[in-house]
Amino acid sequence: MADINAIAKSFVDFYYSTFDRNRAELAPLYKEFSMMSFEGQQFRGADIVEKLQSLPFQRVQHQVVTVDAQPSNPQAGPLLVTVTGRLLVDDEQNPQHFSQTFQLVPEGTSYFVFNDIFRLNYGF
Amino acid sequence: MADINAIAKSFVDFYYSTFDRNRAELAPLYKEFSMMSFEGQQFRGADIVEKLQSLPFQRVQHQVVTVDAQPSNPQAGPLLVTVTGRLLVDDEQNPQHFSQTFQLVPEGTSYFVFNDIFRLNYGF
Repeated sequence: MADINAIAKSFVDFYYSTFDRNRAELAPLYKEFSMMSFEGQQFRGADIVEKLQSLPFQRVQHQVVTVDAQPSNPQAGPLLVTVTGRLLVDDEQNPQHFSQTFQLVPEGTSYFVFNDIFRLNYGF
Repeated sequence: MADINAIAKSFVDFYYSTFDRNRAELAPLYKEFSMMSFEGQQFRGADIVEKLQSLPFQRVQHQVVTVDAQPSNPQAGPLLVTVTGRLLVDDEQNPQHFSQTFQLVPEGTSYFVFNDIFRLNYGF
């Protein structure tokens, strides 16, 4: 599964570097029927990036610890990508830990995000 | 999405209570084309439950902290279910934190596991 892992890694690098630089630029990744669960709240379509832009921090830095990928359909095409990592916001000294799951769906030579589920991991 | 959340919760309750009681009984949940990534290692079909049974602990207790669910296909049917939680093995006093992602595919009146990605969350 070298190919999928390479695609997953390349998506994850792109996603978090864009997130950390300018969240608004994530908009093309989501379609109007895309779904995001963010800390248990549900968002769809354009509301997804609006929510990401409204998050109450000025600076954020994601550090990816693990990336896993599997085909999510026996006919191949879509990919399930899971990430665990840490993030640091503004002047915080202690990173928060997160898990995020994406389903990526191919479109032309690229992928869009159909599913996105994000959780901070508390209680550590 | 009340329905999917209820299905996800009921699956998660069943999965971890069965895991903690007798891992061998998880076998019917996985088909020969099911996939598991366990701490970065890949397994398929019958190898999945064999791997779970070979894990080097006698007793394990999972405590689920969050469960999220989304339809993973626009035509409905399959579900993406993500879990964060803690687990305690044997006589350990300190729980380990984990994230797990499943894709559940309907079959008759039930679901089987097509994708399963498990990670311990280290470095806390």
